[in-house]
Amino acid sequence: MSQVLVMGSVALDTIETPHGKQADILGGSATHAALSAGRLAPVRMVGVVGGDFPKEHLDMLRAQRVDPSGLEVVPGGLTFRWHGRYVGDLGSAETVSVQLNVLGSFQPKVPAPFASTPYVLLGNSSPDAQKSVLGQLRGPRFVLLDTMNLWIETARAGLMELLPRVDGLALNHGEALQLAGARTVAEAIRKILGMGVKTLFVKRGEHGATLATRDFQFSVPTFPTERVVDTTGAGDSFAGGVLGSLARDGAEQPDLRRAAIYGVVMGSLAIEEFGTRRLQNVSADEVEARARSVRELIAG
Amino acid sequence: MSQVLVMGSVALDTIETPHGKQADILGGSATHAALSAGRLAPVRMVGVVGGDFPKEHLDMLRAQRVDPSGLEVVPGGLTFRWHGRYVGDLGSAETVSVQLNVLGSFQPKVPAPFASTPYVLLGNSSPDAQKSVLGQLRGPRFVLLDTMNLWIETARAGLMELLPRVDGLALNHGEALQLAGARTVAEAIRKILGMGVKTLFVKRGEHGATLATRDFQFSVPTFPTERVVDTTGAGDSFAGGVLGSLARDGAEQPDLRRAAIYGVVMGSLAIEEFGTRRLQNVSADEVEARARSVRELIAG
Repeated sequence: MSQVLVMGSVALDTIETPHGKQADILGGSATHAALSAGRLAPVRMVGVVGGDFPKEHLDMLRAQRVDPSGLEVVPGGLTFRWHGRYVGDLGSAETVSVQLNVLGSFQPKVPAPFASTPYVLLGNSSPDAQKSVLGQLRGPRFVLLDTMNLWIETARAGLMELLPRVDGLALNHGEALQLAGARTVAEAIRKILGMGVKTLFVKRGEHGATLATRDFQFSVPTFPTERVVDTTGAGDSFAGGVLGSLARDGAEQPDLRRAAIYGVVMGSLAIEEFGTRRLQNVSADEVEARARSVRELIAG
Repeated sequence: MSQVLVMGSVALDTIETPHGKQADILGGSATHAALSAGRLAPVRMVGVVGGDFPKEHLDMLRAQRVDPSGLEVVPGGLTFRWHGRYVGDLGSAETVSVQLNVLGSFQPKVPAPFASTPYVLLGNSSPDAQKSVLGQLRGPRFVLLDTMNLWIETARAGLMELLPRVDGLALNHGEALQLAGARTVAEAIRKILGMGVKTLFVKRGEHGATLATRDFQFSVPTFPTERVVDTTGAGDSFAGGVLGSLARDGAEQPDLRRAAIYGVVMGSLAIEEFGTRRLQNVSADEVEARARSVRELIAG
């Protein structure tokens, strides 16, 4: 079993949804992705937190097969905080407030023992931070880059420069249209593959996901959960599921389809509780049962 | 090969999209559905038009394996007209104007030789008109009902009464949420099956479609066309593709999956030109090639 390296943000989130409000709970792109990948393979995490970051979170991560020793702790600093509010179908959040804190000056350092990790997620964070981590890796087998609308708008050049240098890109539906300047997913896929992206995962929320390479496309529905409590981290959990599956089951081209299935499975789990709770508590059997259910949804 | 009966509206549409404007072109739910089903099986049409309805349209329908002899012609009346405008990704139209004309007092009459047609589409039209046609059928094998947000809002009781009396219901994503009062498709499917619907097709636009019964669900992506010129009639073409496939290939439970594939195939074709043009010109080989492409998108 290979290891997964996950870099990205670590946050204390305040989240309001029609199901209630939770203050200062564990969040961030690296956290969701690491806990998701950790269901399938051992994970190493790179990120930054402040001196205020609760030690219990570090203990929990270790108990969940996530090695947090790549989390830099800035003693006098404060952890990144995000406050978001969801309405209706929880399709997207309105940001109430953001305090970048220690994330604002984050210069990621990959610990020497982590540098040769074969499977790497450059989780949702600034293209500069992602580029820095990419430059510190030694011979990775598969690097997946995740991003969001913010970086497509504000750091497009840096993002475009990274695309041909990684093995895969994960985007949601709206972000794919935005990055490509396209009206349909079909058009977006063609244009993004033309940007030098070798493997593209387009996340379609409750409509599933599409995996696209120059050689083939594969569309998968998601597990149709009705328990949609908090969609924060769904995309990060998808990316974590993809990396965890590649690390556990292989990363040749046919394995990419299986990885997409674990992506939607982990995304569908993540949204069933606030924050990372569901990812922490899900059993291996539940994950495998859900993967089987997704396969049955497309069985002829 | 069995026959398909299609009832619904026949219209002269004026349509504006980012690709241009077309005035008084052939449209209507029955027309799109009949031409779609006609690619797969012989079709009989029931509807109403005015004395202004161009004879060339009737000739075209006959040439396309659609028998229009169930179209009542009201000599002094005017054909139903709809003027719609699409913007952006053509996801939904803004209605500029509607003139019901002869459709306003439509009392559908199923010609005696049509009454025992085995496969029937109660196309998008008022639940009253659909109920009237249903009452005139003799021993149909599979009756599919299609509807829209207008009838869910304004004629819910009539619609609810029909649901347990037909074999299948086709709705788009938003309509499914609306009918069920649900936040997710998963919840909508459960609730709509609870209304006595035996077979449910949820159309997800460019994200494909889901077929649901009490025994199984099947999700299929659509053919990822980039030529999105006019989405009018996409849902009707989906329903026509379903019926055409059932009539041609069988209507046992495993055949429903194949029918869903022909639904998305015909929907993906319909949107590639204004009005019914693409449905009129597509070859049988193109239809089959597209069905194979859709199957490849979900092949493991």
